[in-house]
Amino acid sequence: MTAPALGPSLTGSARAAEIRAEVTARTAELAAGGVAVRLAVVVATEDESTAWYVRSLARAAGKTGVACDVVALPADAAPGMLRDTLARLSDDPQVHGIILQTPLPPGAVAADLAGAITPAKDVDGANPSSLGRLAAGLPAFAPATAEAVVQLLDAHEVPLRGRSAAVVGRSTVVGKPLAHLLLDRDATVTVCHSRTPDLAAVTRRADVVVAAVGRPGLITAAHVRDGAVVVDVGTNATEDGGLVGDVAAEEVGRKAAVSPVPGGVGPLTTALLLHHTVQAASSI
Amino acid sequence: MTAPALGPSLTGSARAAEIRAEVTARTAELAAGGVAVRLAVVVATEDESTAWYVRSLARAAGKTGVACDVVALPADAAPGMLRDTLARLSDDPQVHGIILQTPLPPGAVAADLAGAITPAKDVDGANPSSLGRLAAGLPAFAPATAEAVVQLLDAHEVPLRGRSAAVVGRSTVVGKPLAHLLLDRDATVTVCHSRTPDLAAVTRRADVVVAAVGRPGLITAAHVRDGAVVVDVGTNATEDGGLVGDVAAEEVGRKAAVSPVPGGVGPLTTALLLHHTVQAASSI
Repeated sequence: MTAPALGPSLTGSARAAEIRAEVTARTAELAAGGVAVRLAVVVATEDESTAWYVRSLARAAGKTGVACDVVALPADAAPGMLRDTLARLSDDPQVHGIILQTPLPPGAVAADLAGAITPAKDVDGANPSSLGRLAAGLPAFAPATAEAVVQLLDAHEVPLRGRSAAVVGRSTVVGKPLAHLLLDRDATVTVCHSRTPDLAAVTRRADVVVAAVGRPGLITAAHVRDGAVVVDVGTNATEDGGLVGDVAAEEVGRKAAVSPVPGGVGPLTTALLLHHTVQAASSI
Repeated sequence: MTAPALGPSLTGSARAAEIRAEVTARTAELAAGGVAVRLAVVVATEDESTAWYVRSLARAAGKTGVACDVVALPADAAPGMLRDTLARLSDDPQVHGIILQTPLPPGAVAADLAGAITPAKDVDGANPSSLGRLAAGLPAFAPATAEAVVQLLDAHEVPLRGRSAAVVGRSTVVGKPLAHLLLDRDATVTVCHSRTPDLAAVTRRADVVVAAVGRPGLITAAHVRDGAVVVDVGTNATEDGGLVGDVAAEEVGRKAAVSPVPGGVGPLTTALLLHHTVQAASSI
């Protein structure tokens, strides 16, 4: 490999476009065979940025020929109603992929509810049994964001085998599944979090740093060693309606290769959700 | 906490005895209520050391009043036969806990087959969905060996919050679930394995080192810093019929607290399998 260039250079757009092209071709093939690929997104929030994200997902789906149903439930929907909706979609032969969008109404636990998504349609790897199968090395859909990180690194030919990776953040949707994906690629993986006393000491030792916490400016130049590769999973809304990651991109970019926000992990995540949906439709 | 004494001092026997006493009391209560607590161990190997282990498990069960059925299948049993057996036991209301003993016949994948163990009876956390629920923070039985490591550390008042832990070995049955259990306890966790280029450099930085590889002498004095805590999960048969762990206990014991093999993690693992079985019987 050649080392990735410094700065906000680890873009995801090119690889995302390739994946979307594959999805478009495969969706057309399936349509010719009488299968209309369909993704259902269950939304139970009035959160504006979520609505924005779901619209952009539906738009991306539309461009590839994947139908995207947004199933809107009340922002105070009871867990039972969400569970019933997921179970109904799991049983619906017209639906190939199911996403349970967060945030959820108070009292609803995403991982618990996602147990109602049948694993064959669990295109965002939200069902705990998908995570367990992933960890056990069995076939399963990985959470799209976690997979997007690995695909981004692959797209830029960043080697993982025998390298050290620091995953900052231990969420069920990103940090934990990503740790498994990186272990599968033979990286030595350290998972850090809010109780890690000296975060910079840990991340400075890593060849690859992945920030997945949701706090702007968390990763500074002091957290990263020269020539490291930094993947920014954070998507934090700014007051002026923009989006920033967890990495202080300008200062970190002077010594490391950094993925931009937006334009890094995000487009790959969306493309992978569609790719998983087509895979789910192909295997029925 | 006071630092644990150096040497092979982190014994598991005392805590194991406490757990077995709880199991005995609870089993008697359940028996008085008409419930005979029962564990089924499915064995499909002629391996001698496995037979020895299963006999010792059955003996420990007997002492606590837990009935232990050893379901012996041929050493060349097909995966389908194993799966059917696990499904039948899952449906049997007389059986409260099910263990699929390794090694398995060639071609059988433990994590895949264990999907046939209903989670409510999965007392060794072998079903991938148990592992996923564990990672997602949902109620589930943890693999007994991984839980035994944490219980051993607790019994000796080794703090985990904010401490660094190196887990050597990335198996589905020990290393990976243990990483989740240690993260839940707010440790910063590094998972190392055969592709970690400089294992000693990683383990020397850790407050707690857990060796779970299955290679005698893997962890030497050079792998451990002064005053560290070392838990030895290895159980390697010696030529003279004895058992040794993965840690060179004598040299490591001069600078660190070490769990003995046998007498460390092992007795706790057995006690926890029985404890889980009683929990499973209590929740029906």
